[in-house]
Formats: sequence, structure tokens, C-alpha cells
Amino acid sequence: MTKVAIVFHSGFGHTKVVAERVKAGAESVPGTHASLIPVEEIDAHWADLEAADAIVFGSPTYMGNVSGPFKMFMDASSKPWYERKWKDKLAAGFTISGSPSGDKLNTLQSLMIFAMQHGMVWVGIAELPQNDEGTNRLGSFSGVMAQAGQVSPDLEPNLEDRKSAERLGQRIATATARWAKVS
Amino acid sequence: MTKVAIVFHSGFGHTKVVAERVKAGAESVPGTHASLIPVEEIDAHWADLEAADAIVFGSPTYMGNVSGPFKMFMDASSKPWYERKWKDKLAAGFTISGSPSGDKLNTLQSLMIFAMQHGMVWVGIAELPQNDEGTNRLGSFSGVMAQAGQVSPDLEPNLEDRKSAERLGQRIATATARWAKVS
Amino acid sequence: MTKVAIVFHSGFGHTKVVAERVKAGAESVPGTHASLIPVEEIDAHWADLEAADAIVFGSPTYMGNVSGPFKMFMDASSKPWYERKWKDKLAAGFTISGSPSGDKLNTLQSLMIFAMQHGMVWVGIAELPQNDEGTNRLGSFSGVMAQAGQVSPDLEPNLEDRKSAERLGQRIATATARWAKVS
Amino acid sequence: MTKVAIVFHSGFGHTKVVAERVKAGAESVPGTHASLIPVEEIDAHWADLEAADAIVFGSPTYMGNVSGPFKMFMDASSKPWYERKWKDKLAAGFTISGSPSGDKLNTLQSLMIFAMQHGMVWVGIAELPQNDEGTNRLGSFSGVMAQAGQVSPDLEPNLEDRKSAERLGQRIATATARWAKVS
Repeated sequence: MTKVAIVFHSGFGHTKVVAERVKAGAESVPGTHASLIPVEEIDAHWADLEAADAIVFGSPTYMGNVSGPFKMFMDASSKPWYERKWKDKLAAGFTISGSPSGDKLNTLQSLMIFAMQHGMVWVGIAELPQNDEGTNRLGSFSGVMAQAGQVSPDLEPNLEDRKSAERLGQRIATATARWAKVS
Repeated sequence: MTKVAIVFHSGFGHTKVVAERVKAGAESVPGTHASLIPVEEIDAHWADLEAADAIVFGSPTYMGNVSGPFKMFMDASSKPWYERKWKDKLAAGFTISGSPSGDKLNTLQSLMIFAMQHGMVWVGIAELPQNDEGTNRLGSFSGVMAQAGQVSPDLEPNLEDRKSAERLGQRIATATARWAKVS
Repeated sequence: MTKVAIVFHSGFGHTKVVAERVKAGAESVPGTHASLIPVEEIDAHWADLEAADAIVFGSPTYMGNVSGPFKMFMDASSKPWYERKWKDKLAAGFTISGSPSGDKLNTLQSLMIFAMQHGMVWVGIAELPQNDEGTNRLGSFSGVMAQAGQVSPDLEPNLEDRKSAERLGQRIATATARWAKVS
Repeated sequence: MTKVAIVFHSGFGHTKVVAERVKAGAESVPGTHASLIPVEEIDAHWADLEAADAIVFGSPTYMGNVSGPFKMFMDASSKPWYERKWKDKLAAGFTISGSPSGDKLNTLQSLMIFAMQHGMVWVGIAELPQNDEGTNRLGSFSGVMAQAGQVSPDLEPNLEDRKSAERLGQRIATATARWAKVS
């Protein structure tokens, strides 16, 4: 059984929808246990992160970067950083904002740099943009980019973006199984 | 008369369309002379860049970054860089690729860093995304992002993206007039 | 009289030292009033930011990005963002961490993108690295990079980094005077 | 036997020294074959890249980004990109410039984004900065940062930076062996 932890912040519920689809995608891979950890509850879950084989980071893009609450979590991880607790775990990420582009790449870049600081190994998306299956419509490679305006999370992100999130979940779970074989 | 130089690389004509709209936008500001400089002809135009009050940089996004030919121009600018020839000039940028996002932000970031290396002052877009006038539909702030697939440059970038490019031209020309007053 | 506001977060006093040197540098330019605004006190100072001609952003680099408290300030600025209150103001930035490089560039890039979202104009450093005057020893262009380990802020950042910060203050104040002439 | 290919551009020999140390580090891991591929000779080596289990990308930082010749190689990889030839291979990177920081992070970020576009998995450095063994003295995490001024490549990069490069070679080779077990 490999363990995939999904740590996320959701201000209005849209990022949570993406996180849930990543979880569903990960659990579609046999032998995978996936869990959702909202950053508000992080104090109860540091041991879960330490026990995970892979951690997926998810944050809305606010003012061109991860959200403040997500950044507070990142800062709080300086203790496991110093102790190298997450070293060699796999990592992946996703973000969401109101525009098609909207500086979301800076959020993904910041998540990648964060994972590199922890000595993790980064898994992105391996699909061509705007492919026949409708995934990766925005053209992102480093992680999932989704889009949602000021409407209910039931309406947006749309079905294509949800499917893209499921694919990321499948990919990180598959990679985790492959990576874990040796240990 | 203020001078705005637009240095660009266009592989298939789409970036050239954006460059032309930036030029038209700049020239709509009284007292502005704007010129287009393809990177292929840069050897004849180093003095024009030195004489310009502002330089706008434009490149397609290839493999998540400025194009190779544009990067060759950037490298060749190490001589004016060392001599501080572009110091205190205004700068702006634009890019285009096939997807809505498509890692275009990394191209704009690289153009900003390039301008900072030269001691220039960076002017972005000052419009909210997806506004009533139809500009900035992709949600970019650091410079213009446009989109074009493998179709004729007559068809894409679309009218909204062309209008966004005109707005950047207007903005850099207006800023140049304001900035030049003292000198 | 032009107004330069310096908004910063300092966890252990090192970033505050840099902020103070930026202030001193700005005030060395005649006709400039500079003020320090810790993010902890931001609620009392939104009007000061709105009244400023230029805003300098300063944050330590924590986990490869601006600090959590600084990001909370960035998120809180979504109201003046939506109202375009900071449009056309000048902006600059600085950061500090324990290593010579230490992913500090990602912090500066995030500050630049943040300023671009607000429609501001970005002023970097216009000095060659490791020059005869001892400034810009780390080789930064987009803003000031300083270095401090786990020692007293009296000892680090060192004199060269403090001088680099003063230079940024001078530069933003000079640029603000030039830019303000028209308005 | 796992295969690690190191593709690099070296303008004056300094990057080549780093590439050679990465190769030596990789070959110190039993069962690893490592090869150096200068971008000038890439036309004879596309099949080698396709056959590799891992590809390490190395470029000097020129004007805050990968060098022009390295970018030309990146653009030329659009054919294997479209055919997904490098999907699921491991990737890593290194860069070098004259300053301690010198915008080297933007080069590493661009290499990471490039690898993500190809569907690769990114392996960084897993060592704390300025550790007791003298490696990672500049404080980099996403890949190796080395420093060299305008002196002979025999003198710079220094011994610490060379050792850091060897460590990256060891790490990517070890990760490749682990990752390859399943296939």
C-alpha cells in the first residue's frame, strides 16, 4: 500500500474540488491510499506527511502566488525540512484561479522550488495540451492548472479541469508505486 | 519625439502580428515614433536600440521559454549590457503560444529579468483580466499573452489579443512620454 | 515632496535592517519622504500606501518564497488591486536569506509579478555585480538580495549588503522624482 | 545498466568542467553508464537521448537564462516532445555564472519547466546548504549552481562546486537505478 497525501488550501471550495479529484484519481490506482489534508488542520497531520510516499500540494493562485494560508503551512514545514523528513518522497501540485493563465505558473513554480528545498522528486503532467481526451486544456505541464470564476464550486472548475486533476492523481499514484518498489 | 523600439522574433508570422499591433498602439500616442526590429536584422540596429527611449521585447514561447533566435539576440546584448547602454530605458514584453497558458509566464519572467539585468524599468499591463473591453482575456499582468494555433496569422491571434497588444503599445508610449520629461 | 513607502516583514530583525537602509537611501534624495510599514501594522496604513508615489516591498525568503506573513499582506491587497489604487505607482523589492543564492530570486520574481498585478512599474538595480564600490556582491538585478545567518542583525547583513540596500533606496527615490514630474 | 546522458553547452570551458564532474559522480554508482553530449554535436545524438534513462541538462547562465545555443537545442527537441519520446525519464540540471546568485535560479526554473513539458520527472539536490562536507555552498535546491569568473576553467569552478556536481551525478544515477527497477 502506497500513501499519497494531498495538502491543500481552499478559500471558497473550488480548490477543494480539484483536491478531491486528485484523490479520486490516485485511488483509482490499485494499492494506493490517498488522504486530504486541509492546511487549517495541518497541526494534526505532520506525522501523516512524514509517513506518506508522495505529497501533492494544492493552492489557489492569489495575487500571482500560493495563498497566504498555504504559505504559512510552507513556512511551518521548516522543521521537517531541517530534519530532511520529506527527502526522496515524490511531489506534485495543482492550482486554480479565475483566468485561463492568471500567473498560475508562478504558483506551480513556487511549489516545485518548495519541493526541491525538501529534497523531493517532482512529477508533473505528461500529456500534450488540448488533447483528444479534453484534459490539459489550458496548456500546463508542471502541474494541474484549473479555472473557476466567482460561481459555485458545483459549476466550476469544469469537467475537463476535473478530469485533468484525476489524471494527475493517477500519474502520481502510478509513479509512487514504481518509485516505492525498491525501498 | 520619443522613440519606442520593438525587437521581436517571429517563427511563422503570429508574433509579428502582435508586434505590429504594439507598434500601432504606440504610434496612436502623439509624439511617439515606433519601429519594428526583427532579431534576424539586429546587427544593423544596435544603434537604434541605444537611441530608443523604450524597448519592447517580443518572442514566441517555445518549450516554455523565449525562442532560440530571441535568446541569441539576448546573449548578443552582453556588450551594451556591460557598457550600461540601456540603463534607465523603459521596457515591456509580449509572447504568444498555442495554449491559453502554455508556460507563457516563464517567457515574460525571463524578459523581465533580462530587462532588469540591463538596468531598465519594466512596464506591464494595468488592466484587469477579462474586462468589459475584451482585453487581457487570458489574465496576464507582466506583459501581453496572446494565443495562436497552427493556422494562418490572419486568423490568430484573435481580435481581443490584437487589441490587448495595442493597449500595451499605448501604455508603453504614454509611460515613455512621462518618463522622458525630465531628461 | 514624493512619498516612498517601504512595506516589509521581518521575522528576526535582519530584513528590518535592510528596510532601514533602503529608507536611509531614499531619504538621501532631496524632496523624498520615506516611511517604514511593518506588515503587522498594515491595517493602519492602507491609506499611506494609497498616498505613496512608490512602494518598496521587502520580505525574507522562507522556503524559497516570500514569508507567510508577507503573503497574507499580499492577499489582503486584493481590495486596492480590484480598485486599481496602486496603478502606475513605482515599485521595487528586496529579500534576504541565509545562503548566497538560496532561491531568493523566486521571492523577487514573486514581488515583481505582484507589482505587475497591481499595474505598477518595476524599478530594479542598475549596477553591475561585484563592482568597485562593493555593492551587488551576490549578483542580483531585479532587486536587492542580502544575506544573514543565524547571528544578530547587528552583524549581518554585512556592510556591502547594507550599502546595496541604500543604493536601491536612492534609485527608487530618484526614479520617483522623475516619474512624478508629469502628474 | 542504466544510462545517464548529460547534454550541455559550454562557452568557455567552465560548464564543461561541471558536466564532467556530474558524469564522474554518476559513474561512481555501480551499473551506471554516463555520457557527455555537447549541444554542438546534438544532431548525432538524438537516439542516445531517446535511449537514456535519465537526461541531465547543463547550461551557463547568460543574461539570466540558459544560453542561446542551449535554447536552440531545447527548441530542436520539439520533435521528441511531440512524440513523447522522453516521457517518464528522470531529469536534473546545473548551471554556472560569474556571481554567487546571478539569476541562476531562472535558468534552473527554465530547465525544470522544459523537463515538465517533456513529461519527465525532476530530481534536484537533497542536501542542506553550506553543510559540513562543503557542498551546496551557494544554497541551491533545484539543481547545481556553480560559480566561475573570467579565469581558466582549471581554477574555477572551485573544488566545492565540483564536489556539488559530483553529488548531483550520484543522486541522479541512484534515483535512475531505483526508478528503472520496474520497467
